[in-house]
Amino acid sequence: MAAKQDPEALAAARPLLTDLYQVTMALGYWRAGRAHDPAEFELFFRQCPFGGSFALAAGLRDCVRFLRAFRLRDADVQFLASVLPPDTDPAFFQHLRALDSSGVTVRALPEGSLAFPGVPLLQVSGPLLLVQLLETPLLCLVSYASLVATNAARLRLIAGPEKRLLDLGLRRAQGPDGGLTASTYSYLGGFDGSSNVLAGQLRGVPVVGTLAHSFVTSFSGTEVPPDPKRSSQLPRSSPGPGGAGLPGCGSEAGQWRPATASPGDQRALPDHCSPVRFQMPWLESVPIAVSNNIDEEELARLAQEGSEVNVIGIGTSMVTCPRQPSLGCVYKLVSVGGQPRMKLTEDPDKQTLPGSKAAFRLLGSDGSLLLDVLQLAEEPPPQAGQELRIWPRGARESCLVRPAQVEPLLHLWVQQGQLCKPLPSLAESRAFAQLSLSRLSPAHRRLEQPALYQVALSEKLQALVHRLRAGASL
Amino acid sequence: MAAKQDPEALAAARPLLTDLYQVTMALGYWRAGRAHDPAEFELFFRQCPFGGSFALAAGLRDCVRFLRAFRLRDADVQFLASVLPPDTDPAFFQHLRALDSSGVTVRALPEGSLAFPGVPLLQVSGPLLLVQLLETPLLCLVSYASLVATNAARLRLIAGPEKRLLDLGLRRAQGPDGGLTASTYSYLGGFDGSSNVLAGQLRGVPVVGTLAHSFVTSFSGTEVPPDPKRSSQLPRSSPGPGGAGLPGCGSEAGQWRPATASPGDQRALPDHCSPVRFQMPWLESVPIAVSNNIDEEELARLAQEGSEVNVIGIGTSMVTCPRQPSLGCVYKLVSVGGQPRMKLTEDPDKQTLPGSKAAFRLLGSDGSLLLDVLQLAEEPPPQAGQELRIWPRGARESCLVRPAQVEPLLHLWVQQGQLCKPLPSLAESRAFAQLSLSRLSPAHRRLEQPALYQVALSEKLQALVHRLRAGASL
Repeated sequence: MAAKQDPEALAAARPLLTDLYQVTMALGYWRAGRAHDPAEFELFFRQCPFGGSFALAAGLRDCVRFLRAFRLRDADVQFLASVLPPDTDPAFFQHLRALDSSGVTVRALPEGSLAFPGVPLLQVSGPLLLVQLLETPLLCLVSYASLVATNAARLRLIAGPEKRLLDLGLRRAQGPDGGLTASTYSYLGGFDGSSNVLAGQLRGVPVVGTLAHSFVTSFSGTEVPPDPKRSSQLPRSSPGPGGAGLPGCGSEAGQWRPATASPGDQRALPDHCSPVRFQMPWLESVPIAVSNNIDEEELARLAQEGSEVNVIGIGTSMVTCPRQPSLGCVYKLVSVGGQPRMKLTEDPDKQTLPGSKAAFRLLGSDGSLLLDVLQLAEEPPPQAGQELRIWPRGARESCLVRPAQVEPLLHLWVQQGQLCKPLPSLAESRAFAQLSLSRLSPAHRRLEQPALYQVALSEKLQALVHRLRAGASL
Repeated sequence: MAAKQDPEALAAARPLLTDLYQVTMALGYWRAGRAHDPAEFELFFRQCPFGGSFALAAGLRDCVRFLRAFRLRDADVQFLASVLPPDTDPAFFQHLRALDSSGVTVRALPEGSLAFPGVPLLQVSGPLLLVQLLETPLLCLVSYASLVATNAARLRLIAGPEKRLLDLGLRRAQGPDGGLTASTYSYLGGFDGSSNVLAGQLRGVPVVGTLAHSFVTSFSGTEVPPDPKRSSQLPRSSPGPGGAGLPGCGSEAGQWRPATASPGDQRALPDHCSPVRFQMPWLESVPIAVSNNIDEEELARLAQEGSEVNVIGIGTSMVTCPRQPSLGCVYKLVSVGGQPRMKLTEDPDKQTLPGSKAAFRLLGSDGSLLLDVLQLAEEPPPQAGQELRIWPRGARESCLVRPAQVEPLLHLWVQQGQLCKPLPSLAESRAFAQLSLSRLSPAHRRLEQPALYQVALSEKLQALVHRLRAGASL
């Protein structure tokens, strides 16, 4: 994939954004003559975040951008040479220098899909050395994006469809593109926009405005702060059409609560957490908005029927996800050289599922989601209307299910380094996320103590797990 | 400041990494004819993080890099025009296009300094419109850097000086430079290095290695995984000097706990959280290291005397700071046109301190820290050995203090856009942080329920606060 096709390639994550151990392992594989062994990794999470029963898949567009631009430059390779043993064969560095993503194939859940534990968000296959190097950046690009999208989806479920939800978290993010990621994927997850201008410029997120205290405190005495969005109050330009030109927020520019006053200001406003109407004439037509430390509980209160609040800005608890600040995705080897691989541990939660796999979502006749099935890639897909024997994860017995519909979950996006089809736009993925959520049953969609959504294995996959486990304990 | 002086300028935060309201306010100032009013803002926090009594100041080097590169390009201004009212005077956009940091002056605590509530980390002065635009990016660059540095300092205090502490949090960060920021400033705060290769390349952080499960699981049957750091086991190159070439970790490459096995592997290793010696010959000489969900409590356990563990890798709880994922810094206007400004609220914690200020640290005769004093910039500095009347914040009465030493806290780094003196290297700031912490009394350094470190106002500053508050309530 040529970087020049993408104007944002310069902003893509750099290939050295990785853990040193990926490079050390790459050297190990290279020395063992295994650099080109065909390998497949799966990226997934083991537990849904925030105590819920679902997550939203997100971050694929950043992964594609990263792969597109993936290439170690001379300076990168020289740096690696400086941190690897001095007797490292120069041919290894030549190998690194020549790497690009042309051997990489990626299947993935479309962004905005519901994602459940153990179901791959990404399947990445290609030469062992190369796909090993991709582990850390892909985890970095998918985990937080999916966490934030899920956080936003939960807040949207609480607020209901009518309230305008705005991301204000940039200043509370882990540096610049922590903020960019949060603004992008909170929109995907169901927010209406962000204050982050760069997210508007680079990602097309609707950007929305407000005011800081300093704007009001910068005026003193009897000066009346002008409406910064309307020129009609000021002599230097003619009255305009009303300053309602912010995309994604119409006339709801969301100026809120400049609840302070400059010294000597006779119009001192009380600093309540609850929303107040303002005493500046140009603020009277603005919808009521609040933005002070809104978390899920406070949002639930504001969303109650009869509340006058119609615009809600969320900063810290949007971007930091304080209830669970990390999704904890993992990236695990499932096959090498066409042979399945499995991590065996005494902790059943940490055991991986071996082999190259396909994943399907089974639906009932009313379109509601029943469960997800993982099976070996070579198995025929489940058929609508046909009975299927499956092994729900964690269960000791199999059961039968007869889906009314069957949807394949993992789409082929990148084949041998080539993008196979255009990624949906951010707005399309956002709409898809809301559609996906609407098909989840209320029991699964519930945010507190939801019903567990089932993920099951096919009989063949279950048998493979058993066989490998038995072999290991011989 | 010319961007070309800095090879990393391209990686600097972009000027549109800001909240739209900063631009809306800029327009308001511009329309009111106040764009060039000389203004001063202070960036500070109101409460120390993690329940402690101190924070470490960090992020200044990223602020300087950002200011150096600050300039709105044509594409940036065009994007702003698309989100502001269509009747906005084109002259406003010309004004934006011409902006750079040549009018900006920055005083700041040196990185690695102890920082306390209300004492500015940064004082930023310049034309009102411009320094308003800097609010969000500066908050974004300072808040998380300081939070992570403080987190690292606490973990270092718990671990003691001998253990090697390594940051492994990249994959749990808020995207790429969330990870880069965490790796950089955890080192500043007292860690020994990071797995993040990019932090090594761009920031000079010592990078350190380990192994993933997939390295072991990729080998099968009776294959013995080779030591990826040593070529001597392999025929294709001659025995080297021992592969101990990782900067910052010597021979302690920190391979740890590949506590899994491939299917059929007879050498299956138990997956304990506690460290284990390995059964691969080349791992026997490696120091014992652990890295599984280490938080402050677990670290305290590992650091106990007699523990064999000597290398500790911390990922999620280093980078996400789960105990408090945001420092909550604010950026407040303290003067415009030479006149002090103050935010008055009913919540005394949210009240700001007016006026351009200086800050001093008072020390006892044994070199220990007594308290910090904020005073108006025009006041003469406190003198060592001379009695001083001060108003501790929150106290109703003044008191007298006689410091043995007095240190000015806020250094001039950037004057009218020019860097006045070179920033210390990251390693120098790291050493300074450890020195600073060593001067803090045990009662303040204690991590749980520490004594509160005093910040006090000079008599003149206290009087100004009173005068402005009285004026506002007339």
